Amino acid sequence: MTEILLHPIGLIHSPYTEAKGTPLQARAAKGSCGAVEVYEPFMAGLKDLEGFERIWLLYRFHQAPTAKLIVTTLLDNQARGVFATRCPTRPNLIGMTPVKLIRIEGRVLHVEDIDILEGTPLFDIKPYFPLFDSFQTSRNGWLDSPEVANRLEKGVVMDDRFSR
Amino acid sequence: MTEILLHPIGLIHSPYTEAKGTPLQARAAKGSCGAVEVYEPFMAGLKDLEGFERIWLLYRFHQAPTAKLIVTTLLDNQARGVFATRCPTRPNLIGMTPVKLIRIEGRVLHVEDIDILEGTPLFDIKPYFPLFDSFQTSRNGWLDSPEVANRLEKGVVMDDRFSR
Repeated sequence: MTEILLHPIGLIHSPYTEAKGTPLQARAAKGSCGAVEVYEPFMAGLKDLEGFERIWLLYRFHQAPTAKLIVTTLLDNQARGVFATRCPTRPNLIGMTPVKLIRIEGRVLHVEDIDILEGTPLFDIKPYFPLFDSFQTSRNGWLDSPEVANRLEKGVVMDDRFSR
Repeated sequence: MTEILLHPIGLIHSPYTEAKGTPLQARAAKGSCGAVEVYEPFMAGLKDLEGFERIWLLYRFHQAPTAKLIVTTLLDNQARGVFATRCPTRPNLIGMTPVKLIRIEGRVLHVEDIDILEGTPLFDIKPYFPLFDSFQTSRNGWLDSPEVANRLEKGVVMDDRFSR
């Protein structure tokens, strides 16, 4: 297995400094504001981005402990395969969130609906486009259970299980 | 800027061996079949995944040439900032596609709607969940133009502009 080297293109700033208390996913984070600082050498790549209402941020779960293959999430009490969850403690520690883009000032993107921690290294930005990204699915595995729906309805925030 | 080292967790097999002729995005790739081989050490993480109709694959654009910050895509003739596009030639070369999961046999995932090249290194698998991933947006920048809609309607396949 070859190793692949990535270089962060920026840094994510957020009101959340630790996992505990951070909302789970963009929907639960509705309205929470953050800023994405894109490093100067990558700034030219931001052209044409401002027209998008929502953008994907791909980033490093930099505060997550070592990867686990079996995890218990905040959404129920069962042990789940990590690839069937969105848990931070996963191989390669890559997270992705579709945040709302409010405005761009120079190389700073002001965003909302951020469920990401302060100081998170950014790998990539992609435009959210419903035709590419939005699908209605009829089977969503364990996430279809009434217990999960109930917890999500109430709004889930992280505890410290995914902290170092 | 710190470097971050990733290790592929598997390999994507696809009928497309070169960029030229590969469909653009899962929707254009409707029905095209592929297989995701997850390396044995990561197999336990696949538990509970089979219940999902669609899954995100995060992978390396391994055949893409060096990153460019300004690109001309297949969807119009304008120079665009790469972060406002889904082009492969981007810093860190990370791609993501929401493919249809047909079935799992051991550590092999049979998938459909694959717009990914044969031999692509896999970084992560995440469940697609409409509540987390599906948003209707009213502003999609340059992708809202009639020209883009027209090209997408016809079904876009890659040419060789993003090959090495």
